Amino acid sequence: MKHTVTFFPGNKTVEVEDGTTVFKAAVEAGIETGGNCGGTGSCGRCKVIIEGNCTCGKNPHISDEEYAQGYRLSCITEVCGDLTVLTSVSSGSKKIASFYDEAEISDFSPLTFIKEAEVQRPSMENSEADFERLRRALGADNLQSLPAALRKLSGTLRAEEWNVKAAVSGSSLIDIIPKNKSIYGLAVDIGTTTVALEIIDLQTGKTIEAASDYNHQIVCGEDVVSRMMYEEENGQERLTELILDTINGLIEPFEEEIHALCIGGNTTMIHMLLGLETKNIRFEPYVPVTNFPPVWRASDIGIKAFQDAPVYIIPSCAGYVGGDITAGVLASKMQQSEHPSLLIDVGTNGEIALGCRDWLLTCSTSAGPSFEGGDISCGMRGIEGAIDCVKIKDGRAEYSVIGNAEPKGICGSGIIDTVAQLFLDQKVDKKGRIKDGVFSLTEKISINESDIENVIRTKAAIFAGCCVLLDAVSLDFNDLEKVYIAGGFGNYLDIRNAQVIGLLPPIPYEKFKLLGNASLSGAKSCLLSKVERQKAEDIAHSMTYIDLSSSNSFFDQYSSALFLPHTNEERFYTAGK
Amino acid sequence: MKHTVTFFPGNKTVEVEDGTTVFKAAVEAGIETGGNCGGTGSCGRCKVIIEGNCTCGKNPHISDEEYAQGYRLSCITEVCGDLTVLTSVSSGSKKIASFYDEAEISDFSPLTFIKEAEVQRPSMENSEADFERLRRALGADNLQSLPAALRKLSGTLRAEEWNVKAAVSGSSLIDIIPKNKSIYGLAVDIGTTTVALEIIDLQTGKTIEAASDYNHQIVCGEDVVSRMMYEEENGQERLTELILDTINGLIEPFEEEIHALCIGGNTTMIHMLLGLETKNIRFEPYVPVTNFPPVWRASDIGIKAFQDAPVYIIPSCAGYVGGDITAGVLASKMQQSEHPSLLIDVGTNGEIALGCRDWLLTCSTSAGPSFEGGDISCGMRGIEGAIDCVKIKDGRAEYSVIGNAEPKGICGSGIIDTVAQLFLDQKVDKKGRIKDGVFSLTEKISINESDIENVIRTKAAIFAGCCVLLDAVSLDFNDLEKVYIAGGFGNYLDIRNAQVIGLLPPIPYEKFKLLGNASLSGAKSCLLSKVERQKAEDIAHSMTYIDLSSSNSFFDQYSSALFLPHTNEERFYTAGK
Repeated sequence: MKHTVTFFPGNKTVEVEDGTTVFKAAVEAGIETGGNCGGTGSCGRCKVIIEGNCTCGKNPHISDEEYAQGYRLSCITEVCGDLTVLTSVSSGSKKIASFYDEAEISDFSPLTFIKEAEVQRPSMENSEADFERLRRALGADNLQSLPAALRKLSGTLRAEEWNVKAAVSGSSLIDIIPKNKSIYGLAVDIGTTTVALEIIDLQTGKTIEAASDYNHQIVCGEDVVSRMMYEEENGQERLTELILDTINGLIEPFEEEIHALCIGGNTTMIHMLLGLETKNIRFEPYVPVTNFPPVWRASDIGIKAFQDAPVYIIPSCAGYVGGDITAGVLASKMQQSEHPSLLIDVGTNGEIALGCRDWLLTCSTSAGPSFEGGDISCGMRGIEGAIDCVKIKDGRAEYSVIGNAEPKGICGSGIIDTVAQLFLDQKVDKKGRIKDGVFSLTEKISINESDIENVIRTKAAIFAGCCVLLDAVSLDFNDLEKVYIAGGFGNYLDIRNAQVIGLLPPIPYEKFKLLGNASLSGAKSCLLSKVERQKAEDIAHSMTYIDLSSSNSFFDQYSSALFLPHTNEERFYTAGK
Repeated sequence: MKHTVTFFPGNKTVEVEDGTTVFKAAVEAGIETGGNCGGTGSCGRCKVIIEGNCTCGKNPHISDEEYAQGYRLSCITEVCGDLTVLTSVSSGSKKIASFYDEAEISDFSPLTFIKEAEVQRPSMENSEADFERLRRALGADNLQSLPAALRKLSGTLRAEEWNVKAAVSGSSLIDIIPKNKSIYGLAVDIGTTTVALEIIDLQTGKTIEAASDYNHQIVCGEDVVSRMMYEEENGQERLTELILDTINGLIEPFEEEIHALCIGGNTTMIHMLLGLETKNIRFEPYVPVTNFPPVWRASDIGIKAFQDAPVYIIPSCAGYVGGDITAGVLASKMQQSEHPSLLIDVGTNGEIALGCRDWLLTCSTSAGPSFEGGDISCGMRGIEGAIDCVKIKDGRAEYSVIGNAEPKGICGSGIIDTVAQLFLDQKVDKKGRIKDGVFSLTEKISINESDIENVIRTKAAIFAGCCVLLDAVSLDFNDLEKVYIAGGFGNYLDIRNAQVIGLLPPIPYEKFKLLGNASLSGAKSCLLSKVERQKAEDIAHSMTYIDLSSSNSFFDQYSSALFLPHTNEERFYTAGK
């Protein structure tokens, strides 16, 4: 009896006999799971997350908690049914350098702020209770304490000789800490494919660590809709567990020190994180549980930060336009400008905003994960080992690799470069057909026709979405003040090559601005500033959502864009041609 | 090798050989633990809570949770060290009838209130999110949802066809329930010896169930100070667990239906419930963590009510004068009167308040548990089977029994009657010495000299406390408008007999008013009314605490009161003598 095993990242599928180990299936699929003990379960390096029916004796390398979350050692796990496997879950691959500027914020007023308190010692003449005494020292009559702070208050006050730091959010005392300790905040962008976050010092506003990982939910489906279908069949619990596992894995070294969190993400991801049903987002009239989630505590959600840390979720405007686009608009500042600009957030769920200080339109397209390395045979995220920049000279590829490492795969910007260069070189025609069916960058890394098809579908969906928004207000690309590009590859994109393939419109180069992960930048601003949080609320309230799935013009635009660069070639530069 | 086993209620101690079963030790001590299977562990009726070193194989009658909390079957548990054992933990003995009037409250505004909502159905024209839609229906723009309500919102709205009840507290949505369901509130009085509570319908304000039980903490010490010592040696966890176990056991049939809680108790009990250190209450300058605990959620505390139900703790004024006395003052309304009244709350920790609308003084005395049946050889709480009223004619006792049941023991009011009648009959002299050393009410139930000693110590502590408060403002008993009596036996006390033994002063009968469990009545008022909660805050702020432990005059007063009725006999009626 044979079973299908699908590996992520890469979405590669193999058929194997019942009883084959996952490790052997991975080898057959050409996927590296790590591991160097010859499949005896002793090195513990071939850890994966598995969804589906498999055997696995417990192993000392897998904790009980990990086991419950679906972690297995691939070398001692046998396939007993169709499986989905997420590799690259070991912590070594998670860290990335911080690519984002310090957030530009109008005022420094973090979600949780520190107030230093010099508290009067009690005496027989003044035996006021400790908390009332602290409140007096802080001049904060309305302060109320959350559980953890009150439980440690008396001990900390005395151990620190009545000189402490109070971590306060709104009118809540979150924690009480020694004067020499720091507290951190966490800004998170939950993407369908990638979760990126930064740890920020809440007293200085400086980022002290940045990290990202695949959203572990990928084993339950590659895009938002397939995960909602998984939820319908199997319940939501597993999806919530997997996104929590992703975040908790990334913040492990900081856990208890994190005293405030700000999270952006598309509406579905946020619902799954908070344990809110997504069923009514999926079907007409696409109604979320809420677009303005309340501030809960980390422990309400299951994030392993300090238990009472407040969690601010960036508000969204509709079921398919989430807080990530609110955060992107906030980071771009387009809502403050007199003239309209366009924001394109390239992700598995591609979201687009158009507007200025008087109005904002948004839409969402199921772009697919090509530009995050998904659905691409040798694709990977933009982390160490990814080919991120490609030039083709005399039919041979010259490339750079992130971290100057041995190339392991190719990320979004590298894929766009490759397709554009092959097109200019006439190795790929306007329908995406490639000479010889494949182009090899290295011995192991290549791009095939199916990869190019996926790239074309992704860029067509995004470009068509932009056209529909512009048509809705009778504007043209030439009317735009700026075009902001956000998304995982944001800072590395070669604009010219993106224009060559028809992802971006043929307007002057100077009008483009790369924002990097704008959703994460926006989350960071909201973490650090009350004014920015208010702006985020205002943006979410003022955005008008256009539903592309019920738009005829979208399908026309999409069909026209399913060529390189576009049916209507005159609309495009084909620089150098 | 011999070990000491102490049984509560009753505080009876026996010495037994190592390896003796707890059941046999109980038989030796004359204590009934229940059980009718001949000690084979099969009937499960001899369940007790044990603190100390003993063996016990698990047994199907003890759940894992109970086992962790110290529950054991006495017949299959062997003594391996000194033990403390709480009997009467099986649920049959917990229920009592409600003795308290409907609370007299100035406005009906429960801590959690119901708002009915008819919510507009979504459509493609109006695809607003569910929560924002509910908020609009309720006309409550600032409403924020706690986790459980938001997680069930979409499902409930659709199942109930957009017609639901919202349970709201302040600006928080606590729960969302079908229109035909009720929600309940819980009012609790946590006494050192007894925990009493009522379940109240939050829409009608009617009590639908009342229950009480021994505070299971009794196995860690009989009074507040010994429990604080236990905390110092062993940590607080076990004490918190035991008080939670007491409350959770009593509310088991209602758990998820309880949507608001209001709790009164002395400061130490409240600290132990909330997980706040008591160390600094115990030593000078007697500083609690807080006298005004914040409103937390039931799940923050570990009470098995609806997870997000708000818990209002009645504020206190000092380490030894708790929210129970605030609640008592509130229930008596003495703080609204022009002339001073006295409130005596008779409990293990006897608390006294003196004052009027312009001022309030309070103090606390370690009265001991005699009047709750503790420290009395045949003592028990005022529940079914307790002798509560005694007359002695021709040297023989005539008595009534609560519930007209077979008498099992004697409760506070019965003890006072007995001692007073014996004194009037000259069977007991003014020093408490009893003819023949013992007086038998029934074949099994008797009162001995050591019981009378305990009664005298308790009444002396309370009377002395009253005298110190009056002296502090140069008043006399005759200046009082009213004397309010609160406590477990409150409604049954024979005032005349209490005057005979010198517990109450010799002033006209009409000035006394029995309040029953005033702390519980006050808690109920606070549960049901915002105005009453505000009054409780005002009372706690305005009370001045007098520390008896540093008062010389207290010890003089106490010594003078260690007689029947008092050294200074002229101060007392000895009616009929």
